[in-house]
Amino acid sequence: MNRITLTPRIRKTPFHEATISAGVSDVSIYNKMVMPTSYGDLRAEYERLISGVAMWDVSVERQVQISGPDADACTQYLTARDLSNMVAGQGKYVAMCDHAGRILNDPILMKLTDNRYWFSIADNDMLLWCKAIAAEKGFDVAVTEPDVSPLAIQGPKAQDVVADLFGEFIRTFKYFWFIETSLDGIPLVLCRSGWSKQGGFELFLQDGSRGKDLWNAVAAAGAKYDIGPGAPNHIERVESGLLSFGGDNTPDSNPFEVGMGRFVDTDIGAQYIGKAALQAVVANGGPERLLVGVEVDADLTEPWPLPDRTPITLHGEAVGTLSAIVHSPRLGRTIGIAQINRTVVEARETVDVQTPTGTTTAQILDLPFI
Amino acid sequence: MNRITLTPRIRKTPFHEATISAGVSDVSIYNKMVMPTSYGDLRAEYERLISGVAMWDVSVERQVQISGPDADACTQYLTARDLSNMVAGQGKYVAMCDHAGRILNDPILMKLTDNRYWFSIADNDMLLWCKAIAAEKGFDVAVTEPDVSPLAIQGPKAQDVVADLFGEFIRTFKYFWFIETSLDGIPLVLCRSGWSKQGGFELFLQDGSRGKDLWNAVAAAGAKYDIGPGAPNHIERVESGLLSFGGDNTPDSNPFEVGMGRFVDTDIGAQYIGKAALQAVVANGGPERLLVGVEVDADLTEPWPLPDRTPITLHGEAVGTLSAIVHSPRLGRTIGIAQINRTVVEARETVDVQTPTGTTTAQILDLPFI
Repeated sequence: MNRITLTPRIRKTPFHEATISAGVSDVSIYNKMVMPTSYGDLRAEYERLISGVAMWDVSVERQVQISGPDADACTQYLTARDLSNMVAGQGKYVAMCDHAGRILNDPILMKLTDNRYWFSIADNDMLLWCKAIAAEKGFDVAVTEPDVSPLAIQGPKAQDVVADLFGEFIRTFKYFWFIETSLDGIPLVLCRSGWSKQGGFELFLQDGSRGKDLWNAVAAAGAKYDIGPGAPNHIERVESGLLSFGGDNTPDSNPFEVGMGRFVDTDIGAQYIGKAALQAVVANGGPERLLVGVEVDADLTEPWPLPDRTPITLHGEAVGTLSAIVHSPRLGRTIGIAQINRTVVEARETVDVQTPTGTTTAQILDLPFI
Repeated sequence: MNRITLTPRIRKTPFHEATISAGVSDVSIYNKMVMPTSYGDLRAEYERLISGVAMWDVSVERQVQISGPDADACTQYLTARDLSNMVAGQGKYVAMCDHAGRILNDPILMKLTDNRYWFSIADNDMLLWCKAIAAEKGFDVAVTEPDVSPLAIQGPKAQDVVADLFGEFIRTFKYFWFIETSLDGIPLVLCRSGWSKQGGFELFLQDGSRGKDLWNAVAAAGAKYDIGPGAPNHIERVESGLLSFGGDNTPDSNPFEVGMGRFVDTDIGAQYIGKAALQAVVANGGPERLLVGVEVDADLTEPWPLPDRTPITLHGEAVGTLSAIVHSPRLGRTIGIAQINRTVVEARETVDVQTPTGTTTAQILDLPFI
């Protein structure tokens, strides 16, 4: 692991100084912005996430806002999922595709009001994509990146922290639903969401100058629950089978090949980018590859991510790639995430994978593991 | 400075292993790819660049290829510069703008043949932008990112190294001109270019599997000139006034506000994105801000980049931002790069700047310094 050079080209989050004070040790760059990845002990951060509550600076989940008279139509055109029944206050996990049906992003789409939406994006600059599409297609919309930075509260005790901060009513929130509200005068959107399967909320800070205030308010309310700083956790996300967009998939993957088939609506009347290509995938019998779990015959103790995808072979032939491998404390096994040719997946073949400790065999399993 | 977490989401370059072997110590992420920024001694790397020759992994300068029957028209539409007289083998420094005339990138555009171009891009995903524009505008082109990764050879002795590798004919190359050629069977494009003002070439490797071979061939040929590994150098780029796109400018800057006015053609017949907005800037009397040099009344010894833009004030009012500050060994002075309101620049006011050692005064100067 090298040191990262921080320059003005790489954006800092509203919580940047707070994360430094909290002892951030490792970072990545995501949407040209600093993303904390650890505070020094990935295993301890995992335990806190599984059994307690953690707070994460996930400002890198930038919002691309579509607003204006044509926002409903424009947002549907950008999205490979039926949005016709979506209401204000609701979020949906969606795929955005290019004209060839290749997935460009897997955001949470949030409908704030009629004709005002946020794509809460993974790592790929959808602001550029959406601006270009809207302008050339002639939609009467504004495409902007508003001053909005999410702070996640995750873990089984997250609901208690958020109830103490906002009120007991939050316990009835459905997943991905949200409200616009404020905390100590800090404007934010409160959403039941977050990149873990341990439960929790994200506070979408709407005033970047108040980052330290929001961080401190959450830390204070969480103290009695032993809240601590954390980050999207590599171990938990593998156990939970959460897609790391751009990491688990190749640039030419379609949504069916990254486990998002159930969010793709190819039979609706509305037009959207990539629809014909996705219909052709279905008509031709489905995707060529699938995102799956693998149980690996290895005893891996190092919790850090694979730096790169490694080849998966069957009888010496390349049949896929491994994008993550961890020892699962809850399962007591070494598991990973892989994209593998569908014929191999359906036959449940035993494949060969390259791991940090050598080449070994692996069994194909369904995601999520837990 | 924190450690960087490398995952499959962040691409490695064809020279990645070679840079590790060469002792890379610091990196950044640029176009979602690892970019070496130092091998441990930024000042020594500066001296080598100024007086000798260095080799840089600049694979992060990704190519966006526009090819097909409408490539000439599509490329012009994407570019705020007259391309009508461009010929194959020629490169041009260009601005790409959005529909509001805001600059999105400052690539070198290379015309490989009629109807085949590369935008050799700065840090912003123009592949997404160009794909969206081409598809919605209906241009008959393919927009792709080919397997092309530049290796720069920079410094006063770079020409000798490249002449030894390719032949004496390379000494007559004009700036930004190039040829397709090969070295030991490694396909590449050889261009007189590079992100320094010390002279040199870039070898655009066209087969990612041959990165180590190309690195070793250049290192071997350069040995007699004491070539060494380096990276785009922060000190030299400030002295030379080279734009760090995304660092020196705000997201709403137009090309006139980043020193690219002479590359913007607003009076041509061809249509391009942002033309009307750029014509309006001219008609309204020109840009509101300018990119300038500043000589700072401070004695700065730490050569590392500012992590963030800092405010520039005049009589307490915000009038711009400082994006870089270094001690110039060649000038013996502390200098920086700033974007400042035009009225302040034209009056050559003495401004106040925030530096790592405190607030002090600064004089406005023209770029480049040297």
